Amino acid sequence: MPLPTPPRNLKVTFEPDGVTMQLHEGETLLEIARRANVDISSPCGGEGLCGRCAVQVKGEHDVLGPTPPHHDPSKGLSLACRVRPKGDVTVTVPPGSRSGAVRILTESREVMVELSPLVRRVVLELPRPTISDNVCDLMRVSRGLGFGLHEITLPLPLLQRLGETVRASDWRVAATVATDSRPPRLIGLGPVDPSGRTLGLAMDIGTTTVVGRLIDLESGLVLSTAARENGQIPFGEDVIARIQHANESETGLRELRGAVFGTIKEIVLELLEEGHASADEVVASSIAGNTVMEHLFMGVQPRSIRLEPYVPTFCQMPDITAGEAGLPVNPDGIVYLLPSRAGFVGGDVTADVLACGMHKRDEVAMMIDVGTNGEVVLGNREWLMACSCSAGPAFEGGEVKHGMRAAKGAIEHVEIDDDLSVSYQTIGETAPRGICGSGLIDLIAELFYHGFIDRAGTLVKEHGRVVQLDPLTFDAFGRCFIIADAGQSGTGAPIYISEGEIKNVIRTKAAMYAACSVLLKEANLTFDDLDRVYISGGFGRYLDSWKSRLLGLLPDIEEWRFEFMGNGSLEGARMALLSSTARKEARSVFSNMTYVELSVSARFMDEFTSAMFLPHTDLDRFPQVRKALDGRKTEDRGGAGA
Amino acid sequence: MPLPTPPRNLKVTFEPDGVTMQLHEGETLLEIARRANVDISSPCGGEGLCGRCAVQVKGEHDVLGPTPPHHDPSKGLSLACRVRPKGDVTVTVPPGSRSGAVRILTESREVMVELSPLVRRVVLELPRPTISDNVCDLMRVSRGLGFGLHEITLPLPLLQRLGETVRASDWRVAATVATDSRPPRLIGLGPVDPSGRTLGLAMDIGTTTVVGRLIDLESGLVLSTAARENGQIPFGEDVIARIQHANESETGLRELRGAVFGTIKEIVLELLEEGHASADEVVASSIAGNTVMEHLFMGVQPRSIRLEPYVPTFCQMPDITAGEAGLPVNPDGIVYLLPSRAGFVGGDVTADVLACGMHKRDEVAMMIDVGTNGEVVLGNREWLMACSCSAGPAFEGGEVKHGMRAAKGAIEHVEIDDDLSVSYQTIGETAPRGICGSGLIDLIAELFYHGFIDRAGTLVKEHGRVVQLDPLTFDAFGRCFIIADAGQSGTGAPIYISEGEIKNVIRTKAAMYAACSVLLKEANLTFDDLDRVYISGGFGRYLDSWKSRLLGLLPDIEEWRFEFMGNGSLEGARMALLSSTARKEARSVFSNMTYVELSVSARFMDEFTSAMFLPHTDLDRFPQVRKALDGRKTEDRGGAGA
Repeated sequence: MPLPTPPRNLKVTFEPDGVTMQLHEGETLLEIARRANVDISSPCGGEGLCGRCAVQVKGEHDVLGPTPPHHDPSKGLSLACRVRPKGDVTVTVPPGSRSGAVRILTESREVMVELSPLVRRVVLELPRPTISDNVCDLMRVSRGLGFGLHEITLPLPLLQRLGETVRASDWRVAATVATDSRPPRLIGLGPVDPSGRTLGLAMDIGTTTVVGRLIDLESGLVLSTAARENGQIPFGEDVIARIQHANESETGLRELRGAVFGTIKEIVLELLEEGHASADEVVASSIAGNTVMEHLFMGVQPRSIRLEPYVPTFCQMPDITAGEAGLPVNPDGIVYLLPSRAGFVGGDVTADVLACGMHKRDEVAMMIDVGTNGEVVLGNREWLMACSCSAGPAFEGGEVKHGMRAAKGAIEHVEIDDDLSVSYQTIGETAPRGICGSGLIDLIAELFYHGFIDRAGTLVKEHGRVVQLDPLTFDAFGRCFIIADAGQSGTGAPIYISEGEIKNVIRTKAAMYAACSVLLKEANLTFDDLDRVYISGGFGRYLDSWKSRLLGLLPDIEEWRFEFMGNGSLEGARMALLSSTARKEARSVFSNMTYVELSVSARFMDEFTSAMFLPHTDLDRFPQVRKALDGRKTEDRGGAGA
Repeated sequence: MPLPTPPRNLKVTFEPDGVTMQLHEGETLLEIARRANVDISSPCGGEGLCGRCAVQVKGEHDVLGPTPPHHDPSKGLSLACRVRPKGDVTVTVPPGSRSGAVRILTESREVMVELSPLVRRVVLELPRPTISDNVCDLMRVSRGLGFGLHEITLPLPLLQRLGETVRASDWRVAATVATDSRPPRLIGLGPVDPSGRTLGLAMDIGTTTVVGRLIDLESGLVLSTAARENGQIPFGEDVIARIQHANESETGLRELRGAVFGTIKEIVLELLEEGHASADEVVASSIAGNTVMEHLFMGVQPRSIRLEPYVPTFCQMPDITAGEAGLPVNPDGIVYLLPSRAGFVGGDVTADVLACGMHKRDEVAMMIDVGTNGEVVLGNREWLMACSCSAGPAFEGGEVKHGMRAAKGAIEHVEIDDDLSVSYQTIGETAPRGICGSGLIDLIAELFYHGFIDRAGTLVKEHGRVVQLDPLTFDAFGRCFIIADAGQSGTGAPIYISEGEIKNVIRTKAAMYAACSVLLKEANLTFDDLDRVYISGGFGRYLDSWKSRLLGLLPDIEEWRFEFMGNGSLEGARMALLSSTARKEARSVFSNMTYVELSVSARFMDEFTSAMFLPHTDLDRFPQVRKALDGRKTEDRGGAGA
C-alpha cells in the first residue's frame, strides 16, 4: 500500500488570470479571489447588494441568496460573492467586473500591490520664472513635485547642473525622485525621454542563494530574474560560520563582503543583459536578507549577533545611495533594506510577513521560513511574535553527503511501494546525482512509514538497501540506506543516506517544530487555532505537506490550512520596491513584532527533546499521522510502532 | 570753520562685560543693557517690581519711581530699570543680577545667543543590552540621544565601526551629532575624551573679502579669526563680472570655485594654526555669502542670476557634508549655508538681519549692507522687504584709481580746515598709499562743504590742489583733486581723485539712497518712521554717519538712530552656527521677506536721478545738512549753494 494521502482538494481556476487556487471549506468565489489576489470588483463588500462581481462559472456550485434585484442570472453570469464551489470550477472574470487595481505577476505567490515605487519618474511642466514668480530653480522643481519649500535633497552634481537642465529643456523635465525618503530625494533630472525607463532591483540575499529581479518601476513588470549561489559559501555553510570568519581576521569581513558583491555583480549583469537594460536605468534597489547577510552586505561586523544577548549593529538601515553601498547600478539610486527584528529574525522574515499578509488579517496565522536558518512568525493584524532556530543546512543540501541543492539531477521525490521497491523523480529527469531537501523529506517519511527506520531514526529493517558501507571507500559512517546504486546513479557511485544523516534531519525538523510550539505556547494557542500556516523559503516551495506532517516537521492540521509561498523574501523585497504601503507595513511589522529568544528558553529545550521522535513523542498531537500509521498492514509495522 | 558735527552722544559702559554703548534719548540702563545684550536679570520685565536688576552706577543719572519696597538703595545699588543716565556712566553688574544666559563676545556687534549649535557633542551612558532590552546598537545610540526609532542617519563607515566602538568603550561614548538635520545625523562616535573639542567655522564669503572664525561649539568662544581677499578678484571686481567669467568658458566656473577654495583653505589653515586645532575637530560650518558667492562656492553655475527674471538655482541649500562641499575640515561635518532670498539678496543679508535683530522688534527698522553690492532690508517682526542695488566697488577701493581697501597706508579720514589745508589719517599711521571707502566719504563731504565741488560733483574751485593732470603721465582724465603730493605719498607719486571718480562715488551713493527710498515708499513710510537704521558691511563699520548724511548716502535723521554693526554677515553666520533659534529665524526671514526688484522699477529710476545731487535734489529731505551748509561763512559758499 503506497503511503496514503488525505482526499485531494478542489481547485478553482480564474481566467483570464490563469490563477488556480485550492478551495477551502465554505469559501465563496469572491473570498477565494481575494486570497488569490485576483481583481474582482466588490464595492458592497461581498454582501450580494451591488451586483458588480458578476462572473461566468463552469463547474458544480451552489448559489447563495440574496442577490440584488438588478442582477439578471439569465445572462449566464453569477455573482462571485454568492457562489460556493462544490467541485473543480473555472471562473471567467469579464473586464467590467474588475476594480482596476494593478496586478503584478511573479513566479512566487502573487500579491497585488498598488504602484508607488521607491523611486518614480515624474514629468514636470514647470511654469517659466517671471519677475513676480521668481522662486529659485530648486524650489520650482520641488514645488512641481508637490513638495513644499526646502523639502528636497539631491546630489551636489545634480544641483550643479540643475539650472542648465531645466532651461535646456525649456522647463519641461523628467524628474526621478525617491518620494519616501525623508526628506524626499531628487536622484535624476533630464529631458523628457519617452523611451527612458526607471528600473528597480528586488533582491533576496540568502545564506545559500542570492536571487535578483529586475523590475520596471512604471509597470511593475518583471523583466528578468537571476540566481546564484552566495559566493560566501566557501567561507562557511551557515550564518554562524560566516560570523566566525568575519570575526577571525582583519580581512575576514572584507572577504565576505567582497564575495557577496561578486555574486551580486554577476546577478546584476545577467539581469541587465536579459532585461536589455543599462545599469544607469536602475535607480532603486530593495534588498531582503537575514540580519547577518544584511550586515555583511553593508560591511558591518556581525560579531555581536553571535554573542549573548545577540544584538545586531543595525536593524533598520538609514537611507543610503547605491554608490555608498557599492551596488553596480546607478550610483545615485536609492537602496532600501527590509528591516530586521533581531539578530536572527532578519529583513527576509519581514519580507515573508509582507508577502503572506498575515499582518493584515484578523485570523491568527503562522509563517515558517524553512531555510538554512529557520524562522517562525505567529500573529495577526494586532500582534506578531517571532523566533528563530538554527535549522542547519540539511534542507538545502548541506550536512548530507549526497545532499544537493534543488538543481538538475537532484532527487526531488521518492516513493517506496508495498514491495519496498524504490522509485524516484529527478529534476530535469536525468540520472540522479544527489538528493535535495524535498527528496529528503519524502525519503525519510517513506522510510519511516515502511518501517526502515524507527521513531528515533535508527535503520532497523534488514533489507538489501540497508548496508554498512566501508568508511574508507565511501566516506560514510554507520549503516546507510542506498537510494540509487552505482549503476543507476549519474555519478557512477551509489547515492545513499546514512543513519547519522537521517538523525541530523530529524534534529533539524525537531528544532523547527519546537520553535513553532514555543511561539504558540507563549501566545496560549495551539496549532488548531491557526487559520493558515504559510511556508516560505526556496525549499518550502517543493515541500510535500503530508509527508512533512508524517515526519513531524509540520503540525498535523488540515492540509488546506497550509499555503506555500515560494520565495517570500524575494516577493517581500519586490513589494517594498513597488509599494509605499508595503514599506510602511514593513516598518510597522518591524516595530510591532515581539522577538522570543529561544536560546535561553527552557520551554524550547523541552519541546525540542519531545520533537526528536517521528513524528513526535506525543502521538496525540499527530492524529492523522497516527491514523495512517495504524492503517498500515501489520507486517509493515516496523519502528513506527516501537 | 571745521565741518560741524552734532553734539556727541553719551556713553554707557557695562562692567565687567567691557561693553560700551551710545546712549539713546530716554533709555533706561536696562533698555540699554538689552540692546547691548548685556545679561541683567529682569523677571518683572523692567516694571520696577522685582528688584532683581540691581547694579552699581557711576556717573550722572536720574532715578525714576517706583521701586519695590524690598529694594534698599543705601547698599549702593540702583535698579537698572529705574536709572536714566544724564551723562557718561559706568555700570557694574554684580553676579547676583545676572539671569545666567550664555554670553558670547565677538568683534562685531555683540549678540547673545543660547547655545544650541549646528553640531553638538553628547556623552552617552548607554545601558548594556540584555535579552530583554535587545534593540540594535544603532537604535540604542539613537535612543540615548533622545531620538526615536529610525530617526537618525550616519555615514556608512561610522555604522561599520559602530558596534565595535560602543563595546570598546563599554557603552560610554561621546556622540557628535547634527541635531537640526532632518533626520538628525550622527557624524562622530568615540570614546569619551575630556580634552576633545567640537569646533565650528563661521564664514562670510564676500565678493571682495572672505572672513572666517573658528569657534568652540561648547563654549561659544572665538578661538581665531582670519581674513583674506577673495581669490576670485582677478576674475572680476564685482558679482556681475564673476558671473560673466563663469559663463564665458567651460573652465570659468571651475576656476572661480577653485579660486575661492584657495582663499578658504588659507583661511582655514590660519584659523587652525592660531586656534591650535586640527581639521578633524571642525564638525560644523556656517557660511554666509551673497547668492553669487554661495553659487560659486557650491560649484553651481550662476548665469541665470544675471538674466531677467534674475532667478538663482538655489536659495536654500539642502544639508551637505564638508566632504561633499570640499571644505578642508572634518569630511563628515555639516555645512550650513545661510539662505538667500533672491539673486541679489543673499545669505549675507539674511545673516545681517539675524545680527541686527530687526525681525524680532515691533518697531520698523532699516538695515543697509554697504558693500560691492548694496542691499537694503526694511521691516519689523511682522513683515520684511528687501532690495538690492549695484552699488559698485567704489566703497571697497574699486573703480577709483587711488582707491584701496582698508589696509595699511590707506587714508581713512580726511579733514579740510578753514584755510583749506588738508589733513588726513592713514591706517597704520604710515605715508599714504591710497584712499579707502571711509576716507572717500570724508574727502568728498569735505570737498563739498568747502566748495571744491558743486552739488553735481564738478570740481568748481580754483585752488592749487585742483589740477588738470596729464593723462599720458598719470592715466587720469579731466580735473583732479590732489590729496597728497608725490613728496607726502608712500608710493612716490601723487594721490588724487578725479572729477569722474567723484561722480562715480555720487552715482553709488545715489543708488544706495534711492534703494532705501523706494523700499520706504513701497511700505508707505518715510525715514522719520524708522526706529533704527543698521549699517552693516566691513566698510560700514568705519563710516562717519554725519559725513555720510552730508553726502546724502545716509538719510538725514538723528544720529542716535544709526547703529553700526560691523560685519553683520559674519555675525549672522556665527549666530546660525551656535543657535538653532537663529537657524529657525533665518528660515523664517528667508520665507517671509518680500523681494522688490529695482531693475524694473520706474520709481527707482526717479529716486536715483533725484539722488544724483549732493546731498539730494530735494534739500528739504536733509534739514540738518541744509542748516550746516547755511551756517557756513559767506566766502566759503562755493558750489554747495549753486
